[in-house]
Amino acid sequence: MTDGACEFCERPGGAILWQNDLCRVVEPQEAGYPGFCRVILARHAREMTELGAAERSRLMAVVFAVEEAVRETMRPDKMNLASLGNMVPHVHWHVIPRFRDDPHFPSPVWCEPRRDASVPEERAEHAARLASAVRTRLAKLPP
Amino acid sequence: MTDGACEFCERPGGAILWQNDLCRVVEPQEAGYPGFCRVILARHAREMTELGAAERSRLMAVVFAVEEAVRETMRPDKMNLASLGNMVPHVHWHVIPRFRDDPHFPSPVWCEPRRDASVPEERAEHAARLASAVRTRLAKLPP
Repeated sequence: MTDGACEFCERPGGAILWQNDLCRVVEPQEAGYPGFCRVILARHAREMTELGAAERSRLMAVVFAVEEAVRETMRPDKMNLASLGNMVPHVHWHVIPRFRDDPHFPSPVWCEPRRDASVPEERAEHAARLASAVRTRLAKLPP
Repeated sequence: MTDGACEFCERPGGAILWQNDLCRVVEPQEAGYPGFCRVILARHAREMTELGAAERSRLMAVVFAVEEAVRETMRPDKMNLASLGNMVPHVHWHVIPRFRDDPHFPSPVWCEPRRDASVPEERAEHAARLASAVRTRLAKLPP
């Protein structure tokens, strides 16, 4: 956990679905998790409470718009939201659709898997529509 | 994961530090994690995006005020925020101070521990001031 060379300052962290001056939405394509998105702050900051109130609200509006797009597209059993940063201490949010048959359910996705990571075909098809759903939702947000 | 008998509708989920009409802040006293707080929505809802925009903003303001109180009191190496609900699908936020020597670091706290859970004396002393810090911060929020 060093701030010296920051992975999210240096690399996008996934396929970019959308970005603006504040943040980007990426699809990291985690095995077994179609529809898994991350919202990554553009500037380097470690904690949400280092951000000003307006910046924080704008970022959370993006996180929740992405959650809406993921719910609409993927129809998960549960959504998981998390801002951890123990490995990469640069503010980012995991927005994760969870299914009862996914590799870790009901554990968090960072723990030991409970089953294999094969993905139902239908779920992969839903994920193919996610980029468009994310962009549609985010186009409606105030700048 | 059933919504029938909901643990957070039926029980407080920890020692209550603060509450209002919207939510409560509890200290679940997780072994090895002094300063670990949860913010639990009063009413039953499964997902953040089931809440209206104003309700969501009010809840996040509480979450971030608790993060500020935890950072000020505990002086952690990193903060972790998460809304998962795979086990108890009732909106709640984990607000967790993380330390390089805590039981799981850098893993999330829900995974297998990497070391024992003994807590430095100083950290336990800091946690004793947390309730007061949480109440002070939350008293400053608009209703």
